Amino acid sequence: MTTTPSHDSIRAVLWRGDRLRLLDQRRLPFVEDYLDCTTPAEVAQAIRDLVVRGAPAIGIAAAWGVVLAARRGSDALAEALPMLRAARPTAVNLMWALDRMQRAIAAGADALALESEAQAIQDEDLAANRHMGELGAALLGDGVGVLTHCNTGSLATAGFGTALGVVRAGVSSGRITQVFAGETRPWLQGARLTMWELVRDGIPATLISDSAAAHLMASGKVQWVIVGADRIAANGDTANKIGTYQLAIVARHHGAKVMVVAPWSTVDLETPTGADIEIELRDPAELLSHAGQRTVVDGAVAWNPVFDVTPASLIDAIVTERGVVSSPATSGMRHLA
Amino acid sequence: MTTTPSHDSIRAVLWRGDRLRLLDQRRLPFVEDYLDCTTPAEVAQAIRDLVVRGAPAIGIAAAWGVVLAARRGSDALAEALPMLRAARPTAVNLMWALDRMQRAIAAGADALALESEAQAIQDEDLAANRHMGELGAALLGDGVGVLTHCNTGSLATAGFGTALGVVRAGVSSGRITQVFAGETRPWLQGARLTMWELVRDGIPATLISDSAAAHLMASGKVQWVIVGADRIAANGDTANKIGTYQLAIVARHHGAKVMVVAPWSTVDLETPTGADIEIELRDPAELLSHAGQRTVVDGAVAWNPVFDVTPASLIDAIVTERGVVSSPATSGMRHLA
Repeated sequence: MTTTPSHDSIRAVLWRGDRLRLLDQRRLPFVEDYLDCTTPAEVAQAIRDLVVRGAPAIGIAAAWGVVLAARRGSDALAEALPMLRAARPTAVNLMWALDRMQRAIAAGADALALESEAQAIQDEDLAANRHMGELGAALLGDGVGVLTHCNTGSLATAGFGTALGVVRAGVSSGRITQVFAGETRPWLQGARLTMWELVRDGIPATLISDSAAAHLMASGKVQWVIVGADRIAANGDTANKIGTYQLAIVARHHGAKVMVVAPWSTVDLETPTGADIEIELRDPAELLSHAGQRTVVDGAVAWNPVFDVTPASLIDAIVTERGVVSSPATSGMRHLA
Repeated sequence: MTTTPSHDSIRAVLWRGDRLRLLDQRRLPFVEDYLDCTTPAEVAQAIRDLVVRGAPAIGIAAAWGVVLAARRGSDALAEALPMLRAARPTAVNLMWALDRMQRAIAAGADALALESEAQAIQDEDLAANRHMGELGAALLGDGVGVLTHCNTGSLATAGFGTALGVVRAGVSSGRITQVFAGETRPWLQGARLTMWELVRDGIPATLISDSAAAHLMASGKVQWVIVGADRIAANGDTANKIGTYQLAIVARHHGAKVMVVAPWSTVDLETPTGADIEIELRDPAELLSHAGQRTVVDGAVAWNPVFDVTPASLIDAIVTERGVVSSPATSGMRHLA
C-alpha cells in the first residue's frame, strides 16, 4: 500500500472562481509551482510558453481564457478569441474549445453561463479519458509491453490522460506488464512529466532515449506503441509530438501495433489529410541549450518541428470516447461523426 | 575565405613524447581542455569516462596506453593490456589496436619500437579516412542531402573522420548540398561535437532532434544516411551508436540509402553476425540528468544501451579503406579480407 498521491490529485488546469491556476509544467518534476492567470492574454502567453501543454489541456485552458475575457466585457472578449486561437497552431482542440465557447456566446451566454460551459468542457474531457482508457485497454492482449511517447497523462488533459489513460487502465487490469517511455526531445515531456506521473502512481516504468525504441522493439518487449494526438485528419492521418511518425514506422517493421488515443475534440473533419495540418516550428534554441545553458557551438543552426504526421496506414487503432476506429486507413473517421 | 581553423587543427589524441594528450570531449564545445595521461590506467579511465570516444580514436588511445606501459617495464605491460581491453566492450578497434601492439611485443619490440607502432596506427587511420572520404563521396549522386548521427569526425579518429570524412569530401566536391546532424542522445555527440566540427569547417549544417529524422526524410531532403561503426560483423551487420538502427529502418521506408563508413580495423571477422556483438549498457544517470542536474523524478528507472545493431539488409554500402561493399547482405565482408 503506497501513500504516494495518485494521478487523481494532479490538476494541470484548475478554475479558482476568479482566476485560472496552471501547474507550471516547465518546472516539473522538481518544482511544483503554479501560475495564476487573471487575463486572457496571460492564458495565451502560458499556452505559448508551455506552462500548460497537451492538446486537451490547451483547449480547456483556452476555454477558461474566454471566461476571464467575458468578465471584462465584450471588447475584451472580441480581442481574446483570435489571440487565444493563435497561441499554438497544431493542436485542434484549441480551435474546437474556442468554437464551442463562441457558439455559447452567439447563443447569448453571459459570463456565468460561459463558466458552466468551460467547466463542462473540462468535466467531459475527464469522463472521455476514463472511457477511452477502458476502450483502449480492451484492445490489448494479455501480458503486453507498451511504449509511450511525450506526455498524455493528467498533465496533458483534465485528468487520467489519453494514451496514458489507456496505460493506466491496462496496468490496472493486469494486461500491461511493462511500460516504457521515450524521453521526448527536445522538451523531455516523457522524461520529466510522464515518468513523474507514473512514479506517483506506483506504475513501474522504464525511461529510454527516443533513439533506443527500435533496439528495444528488436528485443520483443513492445507489443503496442500507445500515443496521443494533437490533430486527427478526416482520413485518420494523425499529427502528434515529433518522433511519433518514426515510432510508427519502427513499430510496423517489428510487428508491434500502434494505438492513437484522443478525444473526439482532436478529430478535425475539416482537415482532409495530414498534408493539410500545419506543423509548429518552435525556437531552435530548444535544441541548442539545456536548462538555460548553451550546449551547441555558436553559429550552429537547428530545425525544431515539434509535431509530425503519422499516416493512417501505420495506425492500427484510433480510440476516441465515441468508439474505436480499427485500421483507420480503410474507413477514415467520418463514420463516428 | 574563412580564417576559422579547420578539422586539420583538431587532434583528439596527441602523443607528446612522454605523455598522451587527450582533448577532453566531455567539455566541448565550450571548453577546449586537455587531459595528459602518463600511465595506462589513466588512459583506460579516460576511455571509460568518454574523455576520448569514437571507435578509431579509442583504439589509437589504447595503443598509446601500451607505449606508456612499456616505458614502465614488462610487469606494467602485462597489467595494462587486459585493463585497456576491458575499458569499453563494443568498439572492436580497441581490441584490434591492442592485438596489433601485442603482436609487436611478441616480435620483440622495445618501447621505442612500440612508439613507432602506435604512431603507425594513428597515421594509417588518418590516411584511411582520407581514402574512405573519396570512396564514399563517389557513391553519392549530385546535389544530395545527407543525415549523419553521433560524431565520426576528427574527434572520433586520427583526423578527418569516417562518415564525417565522407561528408567533408562530398561537400568539398559539391555533391552534398545539405547536411543534417542528429543530436544523438543521451551524450549529444551530434549536437556538441559534430556541429562544432562542421561550424569550424564552415560547412553549413542543420541540427535536428533524433526524433525528427523521419519527418525530415518525408520532406525528401535526405538521400543518404551516412554513419560510422563500432563493430562490423563478418556478415555486414553493424553495431553503431544507439539510434542508427532506427535511422536505417526509417531511411528504407523513405527510399533513402544508408552508408556505413569505417576503417578495416572496425571489421571483426571473428564475430559472425550482429547477434554476437556485446552492446554496452551505460549508467542510467546519463538519461536522468543533464549537465549534472537531475531532470527526472527520483525513483525513475532508465535503460541506457549506447549502441544498437543495424542488420546488413538495411545497409546499402559499407565503405572501408580496402574498398566498398555494396549490398553487404549479399556478400558479407570476408572477400575484402
